[in-house]
Amino acid sequence: MVVSPEKEVIKIAHGAGGPAMRLLIHETILPLIGTREIEGIGLKALDDGAALPLQDGYLVITTDSHVVKPIFFPGGDIGRLAVCGTVNDLAVMGAVDPMALTLSVVVEENFPLETVLRILESVGEACREAGTFVETGDTKVMGHGDLDGIIINTAGIGLTKKLTPDAGLRPGDQLILNGTVADHGITIMALREELDFEADLRSDVAPVNGLVAAALEAGEVTAMKDPTRGGVSGVLHEMALKSGVGILLREPDVPVRQEVLGASELLGLNPLEMTNEGKVIMGVRAEDAEEVLKAIRSHAMGREAALVGEVMDKHKGRVILDTGLGRRYLPEPHGEPLPRIC
Amino acid sequence: MVVSPEKEVIKIAHGAGGPAMRLLIHETILPLIGTREIEGIGLKALDDGAALPLQDGYLVITTDSHVVKPIFFPGGDIGRLAVCGTVNDLAVMGAVDPMALTLSVVVEENFPLETVLRILESVGEACREAGTFVETGDTKVMGHGDLDGIIINTAGIGLTKKLTPDAGLRPGDQLILNGTVADHGITIMALREELDFEADLRSDVAPVNGLVAAALEAGEVTAMKDPTRGGVSGVLHEMALKSGVGILLREPDVPVRQEVLGASELLGLNPLEMTNEGKVIMGVRAEDAEEVLKAIRSHAMGREAALVGEVMDKHKGRVILDTGLGRRYLPEPHGEPLPRIC
Repeated sequence: MVVSPEKEVIKIAHGAGGPAMRLLIHETILPLIGTREIEGIGLKALDDGAALPLQDGYLVITTDSHVVKPIFFPGGDIGRLAVCGTVNDLAVMGAVDPMALTLSVVVEENFPLETVLRILESVGEACREAGTFVETGDTKVMGHGDLDGIIINTAGIGLTKKLTPDAGLRPGDQLILNGTVADHGITIMALREELDFEADLRSDVAPVNGLVAAALEAGEVTAMKDPTRGGVSGVLHEMALKSGVGILLREPDVPVRQEVLGASELLGLNPLEMTNEGKVIMGVRAEDAEEVLKAIRSHAMGREAALVGEVMDKHKGRVILDTGLGRRYLPEPHGEPLPRIC
Repeated sequence: MVVSPEKEVIKIAHGAGGPAMRLLIHETILPLIGTREIEGIGLKALDDGAALPLQDGYLVITTDSHVVKPIFFPGGDIGRLAVCGTVNDLAVMGAVDPMALTLSVVVEENFPLETVLRILESVGEACREAGTFVETGDTKVMGHGDLDGIIINTAGIGLTKKLTPDAGLRPGDQLILNGTVADHGITIMALREELDFEADLRSDVAPVNGLVAAALEAGEVTAMKDPTRGGVSGVLHEMALKSGVGILLREPDVPVRQEVLGASELLGLNPLEMTNEGKVIMGVRAEDAEEVLKAIRSHAMGREAALVGEVMDKHKGRVILDTGLGRRYLPEPHGEPLPRIC
């Protein structure tokens, strides 16, 4: 992609976690910001966070801004989403015990204080679930017309002895997903479109660090990602590219709720491309796959976990979808079709 | 303050760093979010960041969202402001070598890409000045009408053997300020008010970690703050309250540029209450004060440094202003008179 910045403007796709964003970052932004080589994971890797060598392991650091609208939805709200997003990004790097979170709130003047307090209560609840604390924060108030509603940024830090980078997949690894796909993305989209059957839909937003800890204890996990923006398809493409491998995804094995499938069809959306907020997809050494799957299924957030695919030495950088009727290349998603999903 | 959240709405003062924000946080928000006792500095301290015990020292972590408008101003822009704000918050906690920053950009759809790239170039330059790197980031795009312009959040981490908490001041300490006050706040206010003489005004936004490192090597610094929101008066009140001491501030010794003074008068603003973005005010043991002042003056950002006051055993929690003609209590500022100053 040749960027002509004087002509271009920011598009929704630039923030959607897909190829438009990745190209812009690699080709144009990284040289501007400046990067360094570190023993660990730096900015160039574009992983879920960075890992800096510390003691005999790594300090993992991650950040996300959350802009979801509506700010309250079945299953959660923007506060729970912010905490879980950060905890999950740390967990998929291998840092399952989040040391501390930061919390920065940007809110519109004249926004109801009661609503802010409800969100912060939810932040506290999600922190307790994940076993962490907000240790520092910031508040900014913007004038009416400058911002509609509220934005929450969280950053998080954690320690790990062993990293599970996006680039860690190896041929032969089995892929495990801890439950149903698209619950968060479809819930938000149905709310936005005011679909009738939204009562049956519910976001999966939850901290997966406990489940990931159980998996790491049960066997060798080579790579992990939480399939947020771009969904399962998006993160599998990222892992395939970074690991230099091909991925086979068996569609019939991917768990998806009937009501989510129905809403997806009505909305013309692919569940494999929709945001999840309480899911993790991991590569596991074949000989450990059964043990890890068992450990995950024993966890409250992994009852519907499944082996959904495997890593191949061919089709490097590509994802092959086995539909049950045949195999085809899965196209890389451009990201969510609308902003403010997360 | 009794909070009746069902009636109240968010006011500019809630984000201005003054007593309205402090009371709301202490009385209402901390119990909701949940806090823990740590050996270090946690959320309850409301310092510039948190400090968690690690190795034989502390891991310092801080965050700030920046919403300044206009996003470009004489002396800097929102990108430089974000990096310096975070680096300076780490530095005043004692962490003068920032290990890494996170960078989260929230931007309006159809915002010019060229403008984003100019800001990110400035982020890179400020990082190089401060000796640090952005190691992880996030981008979100919001629809037009949801956000006007761009918001940048940075978080930062650093290590220190010794903390310099807000509560560290002791009677007898001398107060050193590294240069002129109100340059940033008055520059932005003059731009917003379209004052004629804005050409003479220039933000002081700069990373002070190098200067702080020089000061720490020269003598015992007991407490430090960067006088951002609420200005010198705001942070001195915070330090006096937290340290349980009184502070004497000698107004004639506080450096202020003539053009800043002129603009302040025209705008009806008190330079002591205006935001600074390249300043630090520190308490120093009396016997070390001359050495520390010398070290600071040898640094490019401390040529106009001055001894501006001292810490007293009386008037606890108060700031006494010596105007040169007499002494009076300095009222605690309610924060910046307008949002989007930083």
